[in-house]
Amino acid sequence: MKIVIVGATGTIGLAVKAELGQRHEIVSVGRSRGDLQADITDIASLQALFARVGRFDALVATTGSVHFGALEEMTPELYQLGLADKLMGQVNLVLAGREYLDDGGSITLTSGVLSDDPIRYGSSASMVNGAIDAFVRAAAIELPRGLRINSVSPGVIAESMPSYGPYFRGFVPVPAARAALAYSKSVEGAQTGQVYRVS
Amino acid sequence: MKIVIVGATGTIGLAVKAELGQRHEIVSVGRSRGDLQADITDIASLQALFARVGRFDALVATTGSVHFGALEEMTPELYQLGLADKLMGQVNLVLAGREYLDDGGSITLTSGVLSDDPIRYGSSASMVNGAIDAFVRAAAIELPRGLRINSVSPGVIAESMPSYGPYFRGFVPVPAARAALAYSKSVEGAQTGQVYRVS
Repeated sequence: MKIVIVGATGTIGLAVKAELGQRHEIVSVGRSRGDLQADITDIASLQALFARVGRFDALVATTGSVHFGALEEMTPELYQLGLADKLMGQVNLVLAGREYLDDGGSITLTSGVLSDDPIRYGSSASMVNGAIDAFVRAAAIELPRGLRINSVSPGVIAESMPSYGPYFRGFVPVPAARAALAYSKSVEGAQTGQVYRVS
Repeated sequence: MKIVIVGATGTIGLAVKAELGQRHEIVSVGRSRGDLQADITDIASLQALFARVGRFDALVATTGSVHFGALEEMTPELYQLGLADKLMGQVNLVLAGREYLDDGGSITLTSGVLSDDPIRYGSSASMVNGAIDAFVRAAAIELPRGLRINSVSPGVIAESMPSYGPYFRGFVPVPAARAALAYSKSVEGAQTGQVYRVS
């Protein structure tokens, strides 16, 4: 398969590339690194990306940022950062990439544990992750040509604990390589409309 | 209690007003009708609203629209309509209204069944409803002064079946008065961080 990984140079992306790269051709996309560059918040940038990539078999998004901050200090603008980047950035990838996917191809997005297991400062992340998982369930029933879509909802990634640890006390860290298996299941399996929770 | 219902002139809002109005003082807010008017997509409009309302005990939002359309035809702009209105409109109510809520006061938002049980044309509604439920779970653990927040996630409302029926074939219609009980539980009970699914 030819697999496009957007966010391929991040912690999860590298692990997904290591897992899927053993068996498939990987096109790495990043904001400033990777084989190709694109801005997920700009649909035109993504349309240009996929025109350059051409036909492919699987799209994996391991990208997207949100603002972490105390609920007390959150504003509409701070929530919009996550809505525009992690949520609509990944939805933009679906909208721009789907026509280049071959029949039966798959899309795998990334949400996260905070949709159901919240932390202080995480209200934007929770909102966005819940939106992604629900979007995936809905989009799955409308995608044409046997196209599939799932999300991977990992817990806090072990490799990120040096920076995220203080916010995730008591959460069981998930090695990136373990999370990568869920992407493999989504890409190489046959399920659709699933949220793969990795804990 | 003094209860502010935003969207009080809609189908669910009227039922919530009928239920809670038996025991409490209701301030009805609508876009163009009700005791007071406000635009939920405009935080300044809501700040002006609550300055006029003054202190109160419970905020109920039964408002918010999304675009229904085939996944094939959805664009970033069409998703943004629902993100700005039903999602951030209700979050704006939380941000603008919380400081006027008395200690122990409650906030009740409205999501809907499509977060988990999708229909054709409903990908934006699913996304937004999933975001609201996850936001409520997260905000509940950060609200100060014993403030509470829950969401009500109703199925398709029986009174709306004449217009929505064709999109919700096979869904069990929920009378608005039955959905209104969940708002009563949220406002008059003591729970927080809950999603009340009404089916």
